[in-house]
Amino acid sequence: MSTIDTLSTPAVLIDLDRVEANLKRAQDYADAHGLPLRPHIKTHKLPRFARRQIELGAAGIACQKLGEAEVMADAGLDDILIPYNILGEEKLGRMKALARRIRLRVCADSRTTIEGYARAMRGEPAPLGVLVECDTGMGRCGVQTPEEALALARAIDAAPDLSFDGLMTYPPAGRIDEAAEWLGKAVELLAAAGLPARIVSSGGTPDLWSAHKVSVATEHRPGTYIYLDLSQVKAGVGTVSDCALTVLATVVSRPTPNRAIIDAGSKTLTSDTLGLEGFGLILEAPDARIVSLSEEHGTVLLPDGQADRLKVGDRVRIVPNHACPVSNLFDTVYLVSGTTVVAEEPVAARGKVT
Amino acid sequence: MSTIDTLSTPAVLIDLDRVEANLKRAQDYADAHGLPLRPHIKTHKLPRFARRQIELGAAGIACQKLGEAEVMADAGLDDILIPYNILGEEKLGRMKALARRIRLRVCADSRTTIEGYARAMRGEPAPLGVLVECDTGMGRCGVQTPEEALALARAIDAAPDLSFDGLMTYPPAGRIDEAAEWLGKAVELLAAAGLPARIVSSGGTPDLWSAHKVSVATEHRPGTYIYLDLSQVKAGVGTVSDCALTVLATVVSRPTPNRAIIDAGSKTLTSDTLGLEGFGLILEAPDARIVSLSEEHGTVLLPDGQADRLKVGDRVRIVPNHACPVSNLFDTVYLVSGTTVVAEEPVAARGKVT
Repeated sequence: MSTIDTLSTPAVLIDLDRVEANLKRAQDYADAHGLPLRPHIKTHKLPRFARRQIELGAAGIACQKLGEAEVMADAGLDDILIPYNILGEEKLGRMKALARRIRLRVCADSRTTIEGYARAMRGEPAPLGVLVECDTGMGRCGVQTPEEALALARAIDAAPDLSFDGLMTYPPAGRIDEAAEWLGKAVELLAAAGLPARIVSSGGTPDLWSAHKVSVATEHRPGTYIYLDLSQVKAGVGTVSDCALTVLATVVSRPTPNRAIIDAGSKTLTSDTLGLEGFGLILEAPDARIVSLSEEHGTVLLPDGQADRLKVGDRVRIVPNHACPVSNLFDTVYLVSGTTVVAEEPVAARGKVT
Repeated sequence: MSTIDTLSTPAVLIDLDRVEANLKRAQDYADAHGLPLRPHIKTHKLPRFARRQIELGAAGIACQKLGEAEVMADAGLDDILIPYNILGEEKLGRMKALARRIRLRVCADSRTTIEGYARAMRGEPAPLGVLVECDTGMGRCGVQTPEEALALARAIDAAPDLSFDGLMTYPPAGRIDEAAEWLGKAVELLAAAGLPARIVSSGGTPDLWSAHKVSVATEHRPGTYIYLDLSQVKAGVGTVSDCALTVLATVVSRPTPNRAIIDAGSKTLTSDTLGLEGFGLILEAPDARIVSLSEEHGTVLLPDGQADRLKVGDRVRIVPNHACPVSNLFDTVYLVSGTTVVAEEPVAARGKVT
């Protein structure tokens, strides 16, 4: 057993105790409200944590990419939702192969996507469950009205090898009431048309503790809740001391009394600000600000009179703005308990772009 | 031989003809001015292009990370500069091992870094060449004055197993004259002290065509010039039709007449704006704007009256703001000539964080 002091930097540390606490807290909340969780693995990309999420009671997982779902299926995860339009013959072939191995559901917000699913699944022994993606305010993908959702539900239902299974949405943070109203109307419309939405899948960590207010939802897909990050702290989901992912970095230069340079740049912390100031919180120097990043350098400004702090060679831990893309940049992460390194874990679903 | 039409998206395409033209144009310029090039491989991270850069006349390469340098040394590159402070025992051990295999030079801007190099190299058969990093206006790493450069040069010279080889800087774009003045003063000071700077290494692509104006420089380290990108087009280094790296993406959703969603998000294009508006140029729809990214979605706004363009399933090519971090996100890139796929190439030095 080594300690984090032996690791070369930059390195991603995952605090196992905080992971466990974050997972349990969310599962307890979900259980209390009778709302199944379907964790989105985009945040951790690690089969071991997906399995732990299931052990604790999650109903299944969500993966944004087929390649992520294939990794998770290989690791024994057998109930996966892909909340994304899958297009292109190569992917449709892989989708069909995956649907033979596990309980797979996919999503669509256009006739073109549905036609591809119908073509790919022709003659398959079991139908593929398809959810209609709904834009309940995010302004990203999704049908714009409940009437459009009904029209696509009919198109799915009309395809012999597809099954209309319900609705999927990713509501914008802080506007969960609008999403609830939108989905409520759609569910009514579908029921009246004889196409009940058996699944209504909502998502997001920022509103995790209000997820039960979307009373028509049959499941919730939180992602970042496992690690949390500064954006989630700002949203009130947890505190800095709940954040399980930190970046270990070294002060590599101290060119002026106010400036320190760390070896964590955009190749480590990413340029995501998510509307926050700066690029992460240095736990050892919370009054310092990471004001800019280049690929391999983070520029830190210290208040006046602190020329003796953050010396060259000092090591610091940083809570990033956004944990998910950090996971995607590292081939391996270090699982830690306190400052003890428990394991070096390959990020098996990292870089799965297709 | 397949065409790009068969590739699943998102995919990174590298136009070999443009690469060759970009490399030759820069080497011709450098040759005309008698200024050796030392290309920075951070942009491509591919041994085959590093070798091509040497074949065309480059004097050596630069790598920002030891891990990148190890990959390049394995591929036969034998003259490598690491323009970075290397700290930490594990890295210093690898540095020593690498210095036994190839001509390696490293950089320092503090006594702490120099002490580490001296300790690591103690008793080695050949001294390690060290350059002093100078902050000529970038506000990142580097000593702040020529006098500080001299002091560190003396410290390097005093270490039995280190050799003071000169100066290294990365000047800010558009302010190359300041850098030239700074370096000129330092070179004079060092010469007067009997510690001549045999190497003065400057860098950057934005000012590539003015690099010869830094008359004391003995080499120039351009990186992005091999691919170019929107930031370099803005800087006037080349045109969009010189850009060799494009991202192939698919329109996955068309929720409103003005909005299209592509499957290239921040996991593909990165959140780097480099001061530009938006997140890349869609070659097939230059009047459309990629206004926001989430991890797997790019949100595109189209002008009014274009509801029939960018249909679901359409494929587009995007020139990113910043090519380098895109290379770092993909395990493989596709080398193309026109629309023919010549090879799928592993990005061998991708993700080398230490």
